[in-house]
Amino acid sequence: MTVRVGILGATGAVGQRFIQLLDDHPTFDLAAVTASEASVGETYREAAKWRVNTPIPEDVAGMEVAATRPDSIPDDVDLLFSSLPSGVAASVEPDFLEAGYVVSSNSSNDRMAADVPLTIPEINPDHLGLIDVQREQRGWDGALVKNPNCSTITMVPTLAALDRFGLEVANVSTLQAVSGAGYSGVTSMEIIDNAIPHIGGEEEKMETESRKLLGAFDGASVSLHDAEVTASCNRIPTIDGHLENVFAELAEDVTPADVRDAMHDQPSADLPSSPDQLIKVFDDSDPERPQPRLDRTYADGMGIVAGGVQEMSGGVKYNCLAHNTIRGAAGASLLNGELLVEEGWI
Amino acid sequence: MTVRVGILGATGAVGQRFIQLLDDHPTFDLAAVTASEASVGETYREAAKWRVNTPIPEDVAGMEVAATRPDSIPDDVDLLFSSLPSGVAASVEPDFLEAGYVVSSNSSNDRMAADVPLTIPEINPDHLGLIDVQREQRGWDGALVKNPNCSTITMVPTLAALDRFGLEVANVSTLQAVSGAGYSGVTSMEIIDNAIPHIGGEEEKMETESRKLLGAFDGASVSLHDAEVTASCNRIPTIDGHLENVFAELAEDVTPADVRDAMHDQPSADLPSSPDQLIKVFDDSDPERPQPRLDRTYADGMGIVAGGVQEMSGGVKYNCLAHNTIRGAAGASLLNGELLVEEGWI
Amino acid sequence: MTVRVGILGATGAVGQRFIQLLDDHPTFDLAAVTASEASVGETYREAAKWRVNTPIPEDVAGMEVAATRPDSIPDDVDLLFSSLPSGVAASVEPDFLEAGYVVSSNSSNDRMAADVPLTIPEINPDHLGLIDVQREQRGWDGALVKNPNCSTITMVPTLAALDRFGLEVANVSTLQAVSGAGYSGVTSMEIIDNAIPHIGGEEEKMETESRKLLGAFDGASVSLHDAEVTASCNRIPTIDGHLENVFAELAEDVTPADVRDAMHDQPSADLPSSPDQLIKVFDDSDPERPQPRLDRTYADGMGIVAGGVQEMSGGVKYNCLAHNTIRGAAGASLLNGELLVEEGWI
Amino acid sequence: MTVRVGILGATGAVGQRFIQLLDDHPTFDLAAVTASEASVGETYREAAKWRVNTPIPEDVAGMEVAATRPDSIPDDVDLLFSSLPSGVAASVEPDFLEAGYVVSSNSSNDRMAADVPLTIPEINPDHLGLIDVQREQRGWDGALVKNPNCSTITMVPTLAALDRFGLEVANVSTLQAVSGAGYSGVTSMEIIDNAIPHIGGEEEKMETESRKLLGAFDGASVSLHDAEVTASCNRIPTIDGHLENVFAELAEDVTPADVRDAMHDQPSADLPSSPDQLIKVFDDSDPERPQPRLDRTYADGMGIVAGGVQEMSGGVKYNCLAHNTIRGAAGASLLNGELLVEEGWI
Repeated sequence: MTVRVGILGATGAVGQRFIQLLDDHPTFDLAAVTASEASVGETYREAAKWRVNTPIPEDVAGMEVAATRPDSIPDDVDLLFSSLPSGVAASVEPDFLEAGYVVSSNSSNDRMAADVPLTIPEINPDHLGLIDVQREQRGWDGALVKNPNCSTITMVPTLAALDRFGLEVANVSTLQAVSGAGYSGVTSMEIIDNAIPHIGGEEEKMETESRKLLGAFDGASVSLHDAEVTASCNRIPTIDGHLENVFAELAEDVTPADVRDAMHDQPSADLPSSPDQLIKVFDDSDPERPQPRLDRTYADGMGIVAGGVQEMSGGVKYNCLAHNTIRGAAGASLLNGELLVEEGWI
Repeated sequence: MTVRVGILGATGAVGQRFIQLLDDHPTFDLAAVTASEASVGETYREAAKWRVNTPIPEDVAGMEVAATRPDSIPDDVDLLFSSLPSGVAASVEPDFLEAGYVVSSNSSNDRMAADVPLTIPEINPDHLGLIDVQREQRGWDGALVKNPNCSTITMVPTLAALDRFGLEVANVSTLQAVSGAGYSGVTSMEIIDNAIPHIGGEEEKMETESRKLLGAFDGASVSLHDAEVTASCNRIPTIDGHLENVFAELAEDVTPADVRDAMHDQPSADLPSSPDQLIKVFDDSDPERPQPRLDRTYADGMGIVAGGVQEMSGGVKYNCLAHNTIRGAAGASLLNGELLVEEGWI
Repeated sequence: MTVRVGILGATGAVGQRFIQLLDDHPTFDLAAVTASEASVGETYREAAKWRVNTPIPEDVAGMEVAATRPDSIPDDVDLLFSSLPSGVAASVEPDFLEAGYVVSSNSSNDRMAADVPLTIPEINPDHLGLIDVQREQRGWDGALVKNPNCSTITMVPTLAALDRFGLEVANVSTLQAVSGAGYSGVTSMEIIDNAIPHIGGEEEKMETESRKLLGAFDGASVSLHDAEVTASCNRIPTIDGHLENVFAELAEDVTPADVRDAMHDQPSADLPSSPDQLIKVFDDSDPERPQPRLDRTYADGMGIVAGGVQEMSGGVKYNCLAHNTIRGAAGASLLNGELLVEEGWI
Repeated sequence: MTVRVGILGATGAVGQRFIQLLDDHPTFDLAAVTASEASVGETYREAAKWRVNTPIPEDVAGMEVAATRPDSIPDDVDLLFSSLPSGVAASVEPDFLEAGYVVSSNSSNDRMAADVPLTIPEINPDHLGLIDVQREQRGWDGALVKNPNCSTITMVPTLAALDRFGLEVANVSTLQAVSGAGYSGVTSMEIIDNAIPHIGGEEEKMETESRKLLGAFDGASVSLHDAEVTASCNRIPTIDGHLENVFAELAEDVTPADVRDAMHDQPSADLPSSPDQLIKVFDDSDPERPQPRLDRTYADGMGIVAGGVQEMSGGVKYNCLAHNTIRGAAGASLLNGELLVEEGWI
C-alpha cells in the first residue's frame, strides 16, 4: 500500500528533514512540496537552501514547488505533513482541513486545543479518537493531528514510564541544541562560549503539552494529567540533540533499578519509523551518558535515550535525550502519519 | 598593613588565577610560589605554562619556584593559599598547619570535616569560629579554612537570600564551563557539539556543602541546614562561567518580586575583593540573562548574577551564574584570606 | 583639549565598541549618537541591544538617539565616527561632508576611491594629505578618512615590516571570528563544528586595500604597491580575533630572525590609543602563538601579534592576529580620529 | 574471497574507526584485535572506551584483546592494519614484517623511507612495486605499506589533478579538526573560542609526503616531485573534517573551469571503498563549500571535496576537504589493504 503525501513548508529546516526521512519510506510517496509565494514555480533544488548532510533525493530536487493552498495539491494526495511557521499554520491549516485533507502537523498552534489530538504514537495513540470530536465540532472532513514540541517529546516517554509509580512532580531543566530554533534562530554571537537560560514559549509548552500527552481520553475529551511540571529551558552550543535533567517526585518508593526497568520496558509501537526499543537506558556503569553527539542518532534519531537514574528525596532524578529535529519534529509528524494510516484514518 | 602570602600549587590553572588576582592587591604581597618537585628551582615563568590572558606580572615571572614543604616557605609569610590537587592537599596541608601556617584552601579535601570552617565571607563568616575548635582538636597553631566547590558557590548566596522565606527543597541543574575541570580535564573531542550530564563527585559536593554553608554555628559545631538539595551537573562547551537552574520549594508564599528583592538585598561584605552588590538580579525584561559570556565578568568575576525568577508550585525557579575560576575558586580562597585578616586570625 | 565627537550608527556591534572605547577617552567627548529612524528619540539604552561585556556608560545610556542627518548633530561636534552599513554610508556620509564634518569611517564604501585616504596611523599617516585633494575635487569643507577592513588591518603592519626586504607576493589565508560579520551575520547552525571557506567581498578587500595602504603618496595621489596579494578567507567558530597565515615572497634573502626583528621594530605612533609596541612577536619557543583567545587582548585589543616565522622558498611564512572589532573596526576609526587631531585637521 | 585481517592498536580513535569500517566489509573478515599489555585478555568492549556514534559490532565486542606481538595473531590472518602510536609502531612493526605479515599502516614512522611505498590507491598505486625493493633490502617476507598523513591525503588528489598543468608551487593553509590529534590530543580549554596556528610535525609531513606521493617510481625508487610545497597548519574547533586553502602556481595558463574539470576527471580506483567520484567539485554557485560539517561525509567519508577555484597570479587558489579519520586515517589504510589484495600481494 502506498500513501501519497505532501509537505507544507518543505524548504525550511524541518521541511528538509521530512524530505530526508521520506526518502525510501516503505509507505509514503512524496507527491507535493509547498513553500511561500516567492518560491512557487521553482524546482525544489532552486527553492531550498539544502543543509542536511545527505544529498537532496534526485526525484525531489526536480519537483516543482507549489503554493501552500489546497488547490495546488494534486487530488490523489491523502496526507499532508506541515512544518509551517506557527503563525502561518494557524491561518492556512484550516483551509486544508476544510478541503478534506488529513494534516499531521509539527506547528505549535492548536496543540492544546481541546478537540485536537496531540500524540506520540508509542504513548497515547488512543487520543486520535479526538478526530471524531474535531470533525463534529468543526464540520470538516479533514483531520488535524499535532505532535508536541521537541523538548516535550524528549521527556514524555520517560515520564510515561515513571507514571506507573505515580508521577506527582517533574522539574526539568533542558540543554537544547540550536537547530531547535530553525536555521537562523540562534546567531553564533549569541551562543559560542555561552548558554542562554530562556527559550521563549518553550517552558510553557513543556509544562502543558506533557500533561495533555499523559492525560486520559474518555471518548469525548482529554483530561490533563495532574502532575505538576515545571521547566527551565536553556540553549547551548550543540547542533542537534536535546539533553534534559529531570527531577521527578513519585507516589511510590522506587529504586533506580525499578525506574531503569520501567523505562526499558516502555513499549514501542509497531510502525515503520518506531524504534524496536523505544527508550535505551544507560545504567550506573555509564554515568556520563546520554550525550548529544554520541546518542542523538540512536535508532536513526527516532529513539529516546536515558541514563543517570539516581534516588532523590521523594523520587528520582535522571537524564534523557532525543534528536530534536528527527524524533522531536519531522520524525514525530511522520510517525503520527504512520499511526493515522495504521489506525485507518487514511 | 601588608600580609605576606604564598601559593601552594601555583603553576596550575587555579594557581595562575591566584597570581592574576594578587597582582596589585591592596593587602597581600606575594612572597612564595610552590609547585611539584619537577619545577623546583625554575623561575615561575619557566615552570608555568601561562594561560591567563593578562601577562605574568614581571615580579612573579622571575620568582623561584619552591618545594611544597613548610621549610621552603620564607619565615615572614603569614598566609598560604592552596590550590593543590585534593589528593596532594590531603597529605601536605597538615604539614603546613602543624608548622603554624594559616591556610586558605580551594582543595576539596576536608571541606565537610566537622572542625574545618567552610566559608563564603558574605554568607557565613561566623563559621570561622571553628578555627578554635580545630586548633584544640588537632593541636596545631595553624588554621585551615576551606571555600566550597565552584558550583556550590554559584548557588549558595541565592539560597541564603531565599532562606528568609524558609528554604525546604532545592533541585539544581548546572551548565558548567570546562575550566572547572582544570586545563586538561575535558578534552575537545568530549565536548564540542556536545554536553556531558555528569561530573564525578560534583553533585555530592553541591548537595552537602550547601547545607553546611547555610547551617548554624553554635560556637562548637555547625549543624547542617535541613533543606533537601539535589543536583544534576552538566558540562557544556563554555570556557568560563557556571550557569545554574534552581527549582526551590519554600515554606512561605512569595512572589518573584519578593525573591528578586531578597537577592538584591543580600548583603555583601566589607572586604577588598567583595563586590559592592553581591547578587546582581535581572528582572523579567531580560529573561535571557544571566549568560556565561556576558555576565561572568560582573564585579570582576567576584559577583553572583541571577535572573529568570518565576513562580512554580510551592516556590520559585530561577537561574544564577558566577565565574567559576574567579569567584568559584581562586577568588573564593582570596576572599577567605581577606576575611581571616579582617577578623584578626592573621 | 577636548574634541566633541558623535557616532553615526551607534547601536550596532561596532557602534557599541565605539562607545566602550570612548568611555574615559583622554581627548574625545561623546556628544551625539545616531541610529536608524525607528530608534530616534529613544534613549540609547532603549535603542541598543547592548552586547559588550562591560556595562553601558551611564552618561551614554540616557543619551537621546538622534537621526543620522547633519541637522540632528549638535553644532559643536567636530568629529564623527561612522559605523553605518556600507550601503547606508554611501548615501549618507556625503551629506555630513558637505555640511563640513570630518568623518572617520569604518564603512567599506569609498575605501579605494582615489581621493579618500585609507589609513592605519602607524603605517601610512602621510596619506591624510589626500584630504586636500578630496576637498578640492569634491568641493566640500569636511573630510572623509577611511580605515581598512578588519582582516586587512591584521596583516598590513606585518607586511609593512617585511617590505624593507622587498615584498613581492603575499598569499594569505584567514581564520576569522564571527563578530566580524556583525551580530546576526553568522548563524550558529552555520558555524558550530564547522568552518566556511568564503566571506563575500572579503578577499577583494584584502587584495586591494593592502596595496593602497602600502602604496606611496606623492602629494597628489597614492600609487598601489606592486606586490601581488591573494587571499582566501575563512570563517571559524571563534567570537573575536582574526588569525592569518601569510606566505610572503621577498626580493631579499632573509632569516626568520631578520623578519622577527623587523616586525618588532616596526614603529608605533604617538597617539592615545596606539600600543607602545605595535607588533608583539612570538619566537620559536612559542610556535603555537598567536592564538585568538589568548592574544586578541594584547594592548587592549589595539596591537598586532605575530609568530611562527619560518623560511620558505623565496621568502617566509608566518602568522598574525588582531582583535577584529577593536583594532580591526571601532579602534581603527578611533585611531584615525586621533591622527586627524594630532595632524591638525580638526 | 575472504581475507582475514587484524588490527594492531585497535582500541584508540583510529582503531575504532577501523572496526566501524570493517563491519560488513565485502572482503575483509576481522579476526584479531591487539592493544597494549594492560588490556590483553579483556574483551574488546571492556578494553575500548568506545566513542564512535554507531554501536560496537556485536562480534567484535566480545573478541578477546591480544598482545601486539606476532605470536598473538592467529596463523590464518593475512593482513594487518596498524594504528599504533608512531613510536610504538617503529619498534613493533618490524617484528610483524619479519614474521611474514603484510602490514598496511597509518602510523607516521617510515613514511619517507626510500623502500616503503607511501600510497593513495587512486593516485600512485604503482608505488606498491617498492615492496619488491623492500623485501630484497630488508630480507623479510612481509610487506609494509604506509598511507600519508590526514592533512596530506586531503590535498594530494587535487594536486595530482593540477599536475597535468605543471605544478610548481603549492602553499597550503589548513583548518584541521580536533579528532586528528586523537581522543585526548587537544583539550577543550585550548580550542573553544580559539584556533592554534601550529601542529607539531604536521607541516613537514605535508611538505615531504606530498612530493613522494606525486613522485615517479622507476621500478627501483621514487623520485620526489619537484614542486615546492609549504604548509601552515591550524587546529580549529571542529570535530571531524580537514579544510585546506591551497595557493598553487602552475607552469601552464589555466582557467578555473579547466581546474574544476581536471579535478572532476581525476580517476578513482576500482576498489570496494573507493568513491565512484573521487573528487566532488563545487563551482562558483556554491562559493561557501566545501564545509567540514556538511561535506565530510561525502562518499561515506572516503571522498575528497573541492571548491572555490579562482585564478591568482601564476596559478589558482582553491579549497579542499576530506574526513580526516576516515579517508585521512583508518579508511586510507583500509584502501591500501584493498589495493594490496587487488594487486595480488596478498
